[in-house]
Formats: sequence, C-alpha cells, structure tokens
Amino acid sequence: MISTLPTKGMRDFLPNELETRQKTLEIILRSYKKCGFTQIETPCVENIQLLTSNQGGDNEKLIYKILKRGEKLNESLDGELCDLALRYDLTVPLSRYYSNNHANLPAVFKAIQIGNVWRADRPQKGRFRQFLQCDIDIINDQTNLAEFEIINATAYALSNLNIGGFTVRISDRRLLKAFASVCGAEDKYFDLCIILDKIDKIGLDGVEKQLAEILSQQQMANVSKLLREISFQDLDSVAKALQSKLEREVVDSLSQIVSMTQQVGLCKIQFDFSLVRGMGYYTGTIFEIAADKDPNGGSIAGGGRYDNLIGKFSGKNIAACGFSIGFERILNLIDQQNASSQKIDKVVFIFDGELNSEILVGQMKKANEYRLEEKIVWFERKRNNFGLQIKQLRENGATEIILVQSNGEIRTID
Amino acid sequence: MISTLPTKGMRDFLPNELETRQKTLEIILRSYKKCGFTQIETPCVENIQLLTSNQGGDNEKLIYKILKRGEKLNESLDGELCDLALRYDLTVPLSRYYSNNHANLPAVFKAIQIGNVWRADRPQKGRFRQFLQCDIDIINDQTNLAEFEIINATAYALSNLNIGGFTVRISDRRLLKAFASVCGAEDKYFDLCIILDKIDKIGLDGVEKQLAEILSQQQMANVSKLLREISFQDLDSVAKALQSKLEREVVDSLSQIVSMTQQVGLCKIQFDFSLVRGMGYYTGTIFEIAADKDPNGGSIAGGGRYDNLIGKFSGKNIAACGFSIGFERILNLIDQQNASSQKIDKVVFIFDGELNSEILVGQMKKANEYRLEEKIVWFERKRNNFGLQIKQLRENGATEIILVQSNGEIRTID
Repeated sequence: MISTLPTKGMRDFLPNELETRQKTLEIILRSYKKCGFTQIETPCVENIQLLTSNQGGDNEKLIYKILKRGEKLNESLDGELCDLALRYDLTVPLSRYYSNNHANLPAVFKAIQIGNVWRADRPQKGRFRQFLQCDIDIINDQTNLAEFEIINATAYALSNLNIGGFTVRISDRRLLKAFASVCGAEDKYFDLCIILDKIDKIGLDGVEKQLAEILSQQQMANVSKLLREISFQDLDSVAKALQSKLEREVVDSLSQIVSMTQQVGLCKIQFDFSLVRGMGYYTGTIFEIAADKDPNGGSIAGGGRYDNLIGKFSGKNIAACGFSIGFERILNLIDQQNASSQKIDKVVFIFDGELNSEILVGQMKKANEYRLEEKIVWFERKRNNFGLQIKQLRENGATEIILVQSNGEIRTID
Repeated sequence: MISTLPTKGMRDFLPNELETRQKTLEIILRSYKKCGFTQIETPCVENIQLLTSNQGGDNEKLIYKILKRGEKLNESLDGELCDLALRYDLTVPLSRYYSNNHANLPAVFKAIQIGNVWRADRPQKGRFRQFLQCDIDIINDQTNLAEFEIINATAYALSNLNIGGFTVRISDRRLLKAFASVCGAEDKYFDLCIILDKIDKIGLDGVEKQLAEILSQQQMANVSKLLREISFQDLDSVAKALQSKLEREVVDSLSQIVSMTQQVGLCKIQFDFSLVRGMGYYTGTIFEIAADKDPNGGSIAGGGRYDNLIGKFSGKNIAACGFSIGFERILNLIDQQNASSQKIDKVVFIFDGELNSEILVGQMKKANEYRLEEKIVWFERKRNNFGLQIKQLRENGATEIILVQSNGEIRTID
C-alpha cells in the first residue's frame, strides 16, 4: 500500500486552513499593490548553475536537485546527474529575472513576489520543506527613498493584518565592516558577522568567547574595548566609535530613515547594532521586524540592501533593496485570534428522496441566479441524521437552508 | 556568465501578463466557490511511489524526479537515486489527499485545486513544462447529481470569463466498453479507446486502418458494421446498437444529464460517441468543452468519472468525478479581446530635485491616507525626459499625477 501522507516536511491544507492563508495573502498583496508595487512570477524550477552560484549561502546546501531526463541522463552518467533544481528563495531568481526582462520593466522597478520555495531542512515545529515567501523589492534606486518606501510598504501590509504592534530593527552592514576595520580584522569581516549574529542566543560573553578563537590577541583586545564603548541601540555612540573607518553619509542616511519612518507612524523603529542577518549578499542597510505579542520575539520579516547581486548575473551593477515577510510566522500570530469574519450569504439546497430532473433543473436555475447576487450556493442530499446535517451546515456558515422534497415541496429550515 | 533565461519550457511573467492571469484565476475561483466548492492544496512535491503507480498514463514518462539528499543519497548509490518527484497532475495527489484527510472533510466533498504541475514534455507553441491546472472534483457522490453540478459549475465559471459561447461534448466509457464487447474484442478495450481517440485527426478511415492492425478479421468486420450503423452524435442509435451489452441505466443517466444541462441553459451540450479522453482511470461519464470561437477547436476543459482511483490509495472504493479547465488555453481566448477594464484610482507622486525628509514624510502620510481609500499610490523621481515619463504613466493607468518640488511646492499635472 502506498503511503497517503504528504512527503516529509510538506503539508496538505484543509479548506479552512487554506482559506485563512488565502485571505492573509490577499491582504498582503492588496497592500503592496496600493504601495505601488506590481506582481511578477518566475518558475519554481531554475537551472542548477543559477542556484549553486554561491549567492544563497547555507541555503545552497539544502537544494532539491532534479535528475536529468531521457537522453540527457544517458549522456551524463559519468558527469553531473542534475541540470535543474527547485528554488530555495525568491531573491536569486529575481536577480536573474531582472537581468532577463529589464528592457520591459520600469526604470525603477518595484516587484512583488509571492511563491513557494523549497529547502531540505530538518523538519521541526513551524519549519517546513515547502513554504511560502512574500517578497517586495525595489530595483535600481540607490537612494534611501527605496528603504523608506519598502519599510513603509511592509509596515502598511502588516498593519492591515491585525497582528498587533511591531517594531522594525535596522542597521547597516557598512557599520559592521567599519567595526571589523577599526579592530584591525578587515579580512575576518564575514566570520565576525556570523558570530555577532548569535548575540541574541549566546550573549556578549558567548560572542567574545567565539571571536577569541578566530582573532589575534591584539584584534581581540580592540574588539572587547569597542563592544564595551558602544551602546548597541544608540547610533550616535556607534558612529563615534567607528568614525575613523565610516563615511558620514552612512550614518546620516540611516538616521534619516529611522526618523522619517517614526514620523509616518505606522510602526516603531529602532537602530540596533547587534542586527546582522544571515545572507552574504547584503551590502548596506539591513532590517528585521518582530511582533510585540510574539512570545518568541522571532523575526516576522527581514530584508536589506544588496547592490551587487544583480550585477553577478547582468554584468553591470544595479542597486536593489528587498523586504520579505515570513508568511508562516505571520499566520501563527493571526491564528491566535479569530481570523475571518467576512459575511457572505451561503444558501444550501438539501434534496430529499429520489432525484427528479424537473426539480433539479428548477433549483439549479434558482441557484445560478443567487450566484449572480454574489451568494454561495451548495447542493446537498438529505442525510439520515438530518439534525446533525443542519447543525454542521450552520456551523459552516450557512445563512439559508432550503429543503426540497422529491414531490416538489419546498420549505425553509429555521 | 550564467544564463539569465528561464529554464527551457518554463516562463517569466511580466507584471501585465501576471495581472491578466491572476484576474482570470480570481473569476474562476470565485465562480467555483459560489457553486459550493472549497479550495484545498497539496505539496508540489510527492513521494515518487505515488507518482509512478501507473495512474498517470503517459504522463508518468514525463516526470521530473528529485535526487535523494545527503546520507540518503550515499546509501542509495547502488539503488534508486530518487525518492521524490514533481506532480504531473492534480488528480493523483487529490486521491492521496482524500485518503489522508477524509475524516476532516464533508461526506460529499467538493474540492477546488489550482496549482502548477510539471511535465518534461517537448516544448512547443502553447505547451509548457510548468503550467497551471484548475480542477474541481466531487468525491463520494455516485449519482449523476455529481455530473450535473460539476458541468454546471464549469460552465458557470467559463460563462463569467467572457470567452463567448462553448459546447460540452459528453459520452461514457461504458459505451466504449460495450462497443468492444459487442465486437467480441473486450480484451482490446484500452487499445480500442486509444485508436478511437484519434478520430478527430485521422478520420474514420484512419481509425479502421489502425484497428485492423490489432483486431482479428471477424472482430474487424463487427467494428466496421457497427461504426456504420451508429450515428456518433445520436445517443439513441448508439444505445440501440450496443443494447445487448449495455445497461439501460447508463443511457438513461447520460440522457438525463444532457437534457438537464440543456434546460439550465448556461452552455450547449452534445452527446458524442467519438469522445474518448486519454487517461486510463476514467470509469463512467467523460466530457470535454470546446470554445465556439477557438479556431483550432481544441478542448478548453475536460474531465469525467473515475470511481476506482481513490480506492487504489485508500483501500476502499470511493466515487469521484472531476472537471479540469485548461487555463493556458483559456488565456489565449481572453487575450484576443481587451481583458481588463477595472477602474482603480492610481495616484503618482513625482519628486523633483533633492529628497527632503520633511516633504517625504508629509507625502507618505498623504499616500497612506489615499491607500485607505483603496487607491494605488506610486512614488517616482522626476526623470530627465519628463514628458515621456508623464506619457508612460498615463498609459499605465495613472489617474492623478502630482509633482512635488524639493522646496515643498506641489502641483497637479494635467
């Protein structure tokens, strides 16, 4: 007997579950469109060269690879077995897409992407092997108008979702670069990022312990001094400590984004030097959002500026800035309250006894008229346990239940 | 340099293309929901055993298989390399889904599925390797109320799409079985189906030529006699010719479906004995729809009853009846006329000169207020060719264009 379970780490969705997901998606999509973004789509499957070109960081280890087919497979028995793979994110495909289609896109392109991605991750609570990402990206705007708009659009979408208050944390990779530089550890910049990123979990002491393993004594002394000098949530103190290696524009722009976003007032925003984010491709601002009522304080959205990625595919450098909503995490926050309260008339015709052409045709015509009035109309046969049938229909939102007898008698059930 | 094209046979969608697709999908989905169907979703990836269990006919030859990962791959270097695959249709996964989830589904379950499927087919005009299917299915109703409802729902959806008139062709696999039986070629039933299915392309003579290759002289004589005796579009003549091997209920039910659907009047419907349909799993009624204005006369939707498929996975026989809209073909019919004429206000703020925090904040607040009123609001920078910029914005549906100078001066562009 073949297993009837979905494959490990992937999910079947029941009608109610899917309805909550779709409604949430609709709100996000409508919000983004109102903020001037337009939706695009790329295939779920990409050439394997694209997905293993070192842009995806650790995600590249989690790729689902697709076996070559037919003659191609025969030819390659001594070589590579796979020519395609499932995408692990929407950013690398977007970079390919922009390079391929930019001639048909606006000068500054504001993209929405909503789609499944696949990662062969170890399945665990709330983490799946097929999951949905909702990304927006602004391509070809090097000014911080991009950050301002993209943070506003994400905050606008989240504020329409009724998930309570939330806070944007923001920093800039160039601060981390300056930090490495001031410590005399420029060449250790990426390792430094990876370790600093753990500060939430292992604390400042843990970070110092791990840094000590990769830095010289002199470098380590510099790091410890700096880490104690600065106040992580105070941009001025960070700017002062790093000023010898930091362009003033970085700080001014960051401070402007924070102040403008605060004034618009859709969300709280806080500079945080401890913010790092995992992906290797970020080059400037980085941001994350945590929901106030999320007990785990985990991130529900994240993004940043990645000005070099598109250049890897198109040959010329193009500015880009993206923000991605963690859809599955958002759903958890929404599930906790009663999600849907939309009122749609739902009329149920219950047919009793033998089916009769004339009656069926008459009721179907009536049903199609109701549908023109935007009502949902169900047909059902009368079940043996009629009381239970009525009870379940009411629970499922039936607003009108009509019993049709095979002799043509019709009555509304109260 | 890595190729920036999408992989062979798959597509990037530009914003306008995707908008047409999404709007069309929305109409189909809303129509189906109004007809009492509810949407579900299964993963794009399934265990390979499920997809190679002989239910998918020729489609199983076109499967994209996914390489085992990590340790699993090492273990299986001498065995099967693949444990997963991309689905090639939505019907086989639905059968697994129903077996897995029936305890949480209504007694008679009416499902909507909209999703991508993958087939490593030879790419050609209008045929793709990743494409969308829109299916509805009624599970666990063995009466022809299922056929009546599912044909009505599909016709209702298509009639909301503004693709002009269309005709349902309908037949029943049990007629074909009786045909084989009357000819003394019961054991050749499937081959007979495959050859008869080509009648549109090769004509009656071509069909007879191919049949002669697999049938005995006696069988062939019977076939030729029968094929000349019956009138393909006249159910009575077919019933009469096959009556010795055909249960009367099959004919009565078919004739009832035709007559009821005609009376509801959403579409034309025509019995057609030459209708066969490819899939091996059909057990009863089969149907197809062709659009009147489609020059190729190809099918834009197809389906039928498959009462044994779910039993293959769940162990007990469950009645099922499905109808699938060929989404990509529908789009071709819609593209030919002007698709979207929806009126949404689209306000564009164009910023001239240096960006100024105070002005940006003020305009963003105003933009967010417009968004509350369901308007789309874009931000743009003034481009050097301002005339062209305005022209393009108008072409893209801008209803209001506001120029914001860096000194705070604001004026509407007429």
